[in-house]
Amino acid sequence: MNDAQHVRPWPLLARESGPDLLICRVRYDTLSNPRTGAQLRRTVLETPQWCNVVAFTPQRRLVVVRQFRFGSSSITTEIPGGVVDRGEEHGAAARRELREEAGYTSSDWRYLGCVEPNPAFHDNLCHHWLALDAQPTHAQELDPGEDIAIATLSVDEVRAAIWSGEIRHALVLTALSRVLDLRPANGHLPS
Amino acid sequence: MNDAQHVRPWPLLARESGPDLLICRVRYDTLSNPRTGAQLRRTVLETPQWCNVVAFTPQRRLVVVRQFRFGSSSITTEIPGGVVDRGEEHGAAARRELREEAGYTSSDWRYLGCVEPNPAFHDNLCHHWLALDAQPTHAQELDPGEDIAIATLSVDEVRAAIWSGEIRHALVLTALSRVLDLRPANGHLPS
Repeated sequence: MNDAQHVRPWPLLARESGPDLLICRVRYDTLSNPRTGAQLRRTVLETPQWCNVVAFTPQRRLVVVRQFRFGSSSITTEIPGGVVDRGEEHGAAARRELREEAGYTSSDWRYLGCVEPNPAFHDNLCHHWLALDAQPTHAQELDPGEDIAIATLSVDEVRAAIWSGEIRHALVLTALSRVLDLRPANGHLPS
Repeated sequence: MNDAQHVRPWPLLARESGPDLLICRVRYDTLSNPRTGAQLRRTVLETPQWCNVVAFTPQRRLVVVRQFRFGSSSITTEIPGGVVDRGEEHGAAARRELREEAGYTSSDWRYLGCVEPNPAFHDNLCHHWLALDAQPTHAQELDPGEDIAIATLSVDEVRAAIWSGEIRHALVLTALSRVLDLRPANGHLPS
């Protein structure tokens, strides 16, 4: 059985640009497997940083957005979020997305850390932010490519929506897992 | 402000195949925004189903794998998992991945539900499985494109690895959030 210390970075032998998919740009890397010496060509999706926002109202209700998603071909329930623009700080992007998508603002922001959406082929991070005392202060600013409805859910409703599968976007769940215990009542690890 | 009931599915006007990226296949959908009537072309990545496994040994240690990841260009700590083969049931894929990547097997499997890795452009699900009493019974079966080391972590070590950022693959975290409370000690929502 392999030992953790034996895993080494793979030397990069060649790099080739692929098509621009708008949401990301394709790159092909040729690498050498240090265990076998085999050369492999792997797809990397060069992807901008993402952010999303766990925003709670003063009544402890979570701000959620509902929209038709093109990947799943379904209407999803998510938290506000999106792409960090080039040159933009991810905290500024989080504030912008909460305001544009939901019309909410907050003066109490806390960073919840970041995750890798999928390090197997994405090179980006998703930054999670917490906004407390979020208030509906602005009109939504939707671009022609968006149609987003807003709602708020109590913490119990959030948990129920997760357990029912209504909320199942992985990056929404990783953000929520930093402020809520997401285990179902029967989901505790047997002792 | 929009009402949840006002969000409707977007009519599909045209569909065009794009390049095969091996990890997924590109598709371009042209849709009509029901709010504005605008026509938009969107990228969808047709992606096979994925699965991963939260495997605990009889000593309540989590089985983790370490490998160089091409997207992040870094060595990650994750749980075993991978692609569900065409025609394969995701439970069978989970058992296969635990055995092939880590050499562990279990006779106590429980389904933890699924998440959407990213419904904005992926059309797939990631299925989470829990394996209890997992034991190292087999040799690893690595293909030429893999170099994977195995380790086990106590629950406290898992939490520390999440909070330090050592474990930060989103789909690993969504699986773990179904059996562990992942909030940091200071991460509880203010009351």
